[in-house]
Amino acid sequence: MSESLRALSDIDRVIHEPARLMIVSLLYLSQQADFLWLLRQTELTKGNLSAHMAKLEQAGYVGVEKRFQGKIPQTLYRLTESGRNGFEQYRATLKRALDQSR
Amino acid sequence: MSESLRALSDIDRVIHEPARLMIVSLLYLSQQADFLWLLRQTELTKGNLSAHMAKLEQAGYVGVEKRFQGKIPQTLYRLTESGRNGFEQYRATLKRALDQSR
Repeated sequence: MSESLRALSDIDRVIHEPARLMIVSLLYLSQQADFLWLLRQTELTKGNLSAHMAKLEQAGYVGVEKRFQGKIPQTLYRLTESGRNGFEQYRATLKRALDQSR
Repeated sequence: MSESLRALSDIDRVIHEPARLMIVSLLYLSQQADFLWLLRQTELTKGNLSAHMAKLEQAGYVGVEKRFQGKIPQTLYRLTESGRNGFEQYRATLKRALDQSR
């Protein structure tokens, strides 16, 4: 089998999960994003989004900043450098595998 | 959010699982493949490969033929038309999403 297909065995499952792939793609495209914006964009439930963000934080892929905008609390997320690298590597691995089957 | 990212919510999880993505890609590239060949190519355990093949059969994505080559039993798999279509749709959805984040 081609190496590009076998590489799927070691794919980063933190990023591969569909909802997290959506979240990481969104964060990759924006400098930072707040929880409520992510909630609207992804159409996940609060509980699901929280769980996915916690998993991404644990993996060191996402940094969090809590602050107030006026009296309104805001939770801001951004991809860490490790998160950007992880996503770029994931994307390259998957694209190579998908191109294999053309 | 772009529709191409939101489409990840509905991605076909039968195909998305990394080992099954590897198996389906292999079957897409070959007319048919026998169990032992798939075992060598994927480096999965027998139990894991069996479980994934059963899941793909249940989804209607894979057809099975059991036969004897001389005295040796052989289990042959091929993608059904629904499996080929499912894979092509999966691949297109994922590529569009990954291209989004360039």
